[in-house]
Amino acid sequence: MDVKRYMQTLGKQAREASRAIARAETNQKNRALLAMAAAIRRDAAKLLEANARDMEHARNAGYDSALLDRLQLTEKTVVGMAEGLEQIAALPDPIGEMTDLKFRPSGIQVGKMRVPLGVIGIIYEARPNVTADAAGLCLKSGNAAILRGGSEALHSNQAVAACVREGLEAAGLPAAVVQVVETTDRAAVGELITMKDYVDVIVPRGGKGLIERITGEARVPVIKHLHGNCHVYVDDRADLAKAVKIVENAKTQRYGTCNTTESLLVARAVAATVLPEIGRMLAGKGVEMRGCPEALAILKGAAVAENKLKAAVEADWYEEYLGPIIAVKVVDGLDAAIEHINTHGSQHTDAIVTEDYGRARRFLREVDSASVMVNASTRFADGFEYGLGAEIGISTDKIHARGPVGLEGLTSQKWVVLGDGHVRG
Amino acid sequence: MDVKRYMQTLGKQAREASRAIARAETNQKNRALLAMAAAIRRDAAKLLEANARDMEHARNAGYDSALLDRLQLTEKTVVGMAEGLEQIAALPDPIGEMTDLKFRPSGIQVGKMRVPLGVIGIIYEARPNVTADAAGLCLKSGNAAILRGGSEALHSNQAVAACVREGLEAAGLPAAVVQVVETTDRAAVGELITMKDYVDVIVPRGGKGLIERITGEARVPVIKHLHGNCHVYVDDRADLAKAVKIVENAKTQRYGTCNTTESLLVARAVAATVLPEIGRMLAGKGVEMRGCPEALAILKGAAVAENKLKAAVEADWYEEYLGPIIAVKVVDGLDAAIEHINTHGSQHTDAIVTEDYGRARRFLREVDSASVMVNASTRFADGFEYGLGAEIGISTDKIHARGPVGLEGLTSQKWVVLGDGHVRG
Repeated sequence: MDVKRYMQTLGKQAREASRAIARAETNQKNRALLAMAAAIRRDAAKLLEANARDMEHARNAGYDSALLDRLQLTEKTVVGMAEGLEQIAALPDPIGEMTDLKFRPSGIQVGKMRVPLGVIGIIYEARPNVTADAAGLCLKSGNAAILRGGSEALHSNQAVAACVREGLEAAGLPAAVVQVVETTDRAAVGELITMKDYVDVIVPRGGKGLIERITGEARVPVIKHLHGNCHVYVDDRADLAKAVKIVENAKTQRYGTCNTTESLLVARAVAATVLPEIGRMLAGKGVEMRGCPEALAILKGAAVAENKLKAAVEADWYEEYLGPIIAVKVVDGLDAAIEHINTHGSQHTDAIVTEDYGRARRFLREVDSASVMVNASTRFADGFEYGLGAEIGISTDKIHARGPVGLEGLTSQKWVVLGDGHVRG
Repeated sequence: MDVKRYMQTLGKQAREASRAIARAETNQKNRALLAMAAAIRRDAAKLLEANARDMEHARNAGYDSALLDRLQLTEKTVVGMAEGLEQIAALPDPIGEMTDLKFRPSGIQVGKMRVPLGVIGIIYEARPNVTADAAGLCLKSGNAAILRGGSEALHSNQAVAACVREGLEAAGLPAAVVQVVETTDRAAVGELITMKDYVDVIVPRGGKGLIERITGEARVPVIKHLHGNCHVYVDDRADLAKAVKIVENAKTQRYGTCNTTESLLVARAVAATVLPEIGRMLAGKGVEMRGCPEALAILKGAAVAENKLKAAVEADWYEEYLGPIIAVKVVDGLDAAIEHINTHGSQHTDAIVTEDYGRARRFLREVDSASVMVNASTRFADGFEYGLGAEIGISTDKIHARGPVGLEGLTSQKWVVLGDGHVRG
């Protein structure tokens, strides 16, 4: 198979389909989404069967249990896919929205119109449900999509893709609005991320290795999520009860998510009062603490289980553990906390716990992260929690979209000028 | 000189200064802008002297007259620089603006805050006034800037930079908020566009060759303006008088600007009535018409000067002439016009002349360009005309900023979450 030619063909078809979907009416897009959902519900058994083939293959290939876990579809996750598409159908259509139309002294009226980006390439691993989610989000935002899932999920993705295609056709939309790359040749990715004429943006979803490789090689803009080293800073004006509750939720509600807190900063003035309670809570939940000398001394003196305490090394301040480990540091106060976060963080999500108005305002303003929070758990950084309805990913970039990316992040705004024969003087 | 080390030092200093300017108050930024303007007015003679050295050197080096023209400062352009800075001082501060703060069912309040991008690298040619403009726009939008002007403008740029630095210091801001690269070594550009840790976005300003080179090599996001192949489409429901007036202004008001119209499309049904008048007007202004066979036949039959008529070749539909030449094509109607523009255009600025409501709406929606216009000259595509107050450039990208880029295009929005001890359920 000539992979380059194959991808170029997908690209050309996507570009053409992107024009059709860009001008599709809201109802037509929603009909397609609901028909996809119906096909997925109807074909649940087929999807599970296809998934079983992928699972067997993956087991034989010796993939680890985390991958198997992400790969597996269940009756519940299949229904979840259908529900996701139904939710996207219920979201307002962002396309065509006109805003800020104002008359200028020259007599023209100038404003903005929200438009699709065009063709979006999504590169993802293992999870077959991304096929449905990504197809739905791209479609609703008026974009064509080229989806490149992991080779381990090929049969599952093709089965989902068949339902997606059926939905598109039922609504009278070109099937090329959503195309799934059907080769497992890795050269297909290289082609996808460099076809500037046919692809407007790449959204990679996966581990840091995948993202770095794609960012390094892409000639097309990438909306990327690198990693999440999230912080909670407990200020000396914090409400202690809130601090314990927030750290508990931010660290232990789920360990493997990017918005989980990985570093705890505590103001020196309250370290001796706040750290013992937090330390016992974390140890009780099986969380290992990697502390600076000052933090360690306090924790040790507070009867926190010794086997849960360890001295932090420099690398710990940068680490995304994705597990039951947290870095703990005592800092001078707000300035040191902001400095530490801006230096060691990943510009993802950071929170302050404080009752001080001025410090809350400064933290919000000066911490340079996609999400900044006061007295709330970093776990809230999520498209659903923010009211986006769904998310294609979380961006740690500053250009274009920051933080959770929903429908709006897959759009752009063009300028609209209305005149009546106006010319420039 | 170790260029790599030199650029890395500039980068580190810029990153540090970006934190200070990000949290600077509006008044402090405005004081710096006004002090820069005052210094430029006071030092007008010095600036002209430095510029005279650059001009002499450029003349001896045999640069062409277009470059000499762009390089030259006059008393008027020096005052223009000062006025530009004063206008930027008068613009509202975009930074810190909070919008859309809404309560979510979980109890948290979620919204957005407008923030600087961080460090902006500007790469430009010849025009020394870009030094003042870019410094002012980056400063007001809370960013640090690294400016890399053309080697032919080195003395002029350094003289402007001295005024900029004086303004920063007068307002108590770090001088590193605006740094001018002081080496003419081209390796400095290569370094600037790949220092991902220190530079958040590159804005190149110059010819297509420069932009393509930078885009090809950059590892930092680029806000770019590639070229402007702008169209006017005269629909068969056009008001003829408006069509003539708009084509005249769009093509002949200025030839060398990117928002000048380069291609004229005319609906077949009105070609015979509309083209003769437009053709005579254009020929009278010395504009050469490169027409499709149908357009040529009509123009020739209408006593348009033969020496201004030429047969168009395929390349003409893509061309940005930047001179007194226009491509002319007769098309079937709206659909063909949209198709032609989306295929051959540069996604810059395109206009329809029509009195038909539905066709105006379709053109606005379906033409995939940064600016789409009804009954107005493409020459309006400009930051000042759109009310941005000033522009750092015009983007032909879809990601991040489209069309004229003002202060807002140099910012991003982060998410703000306000809670009162809220945790995720």
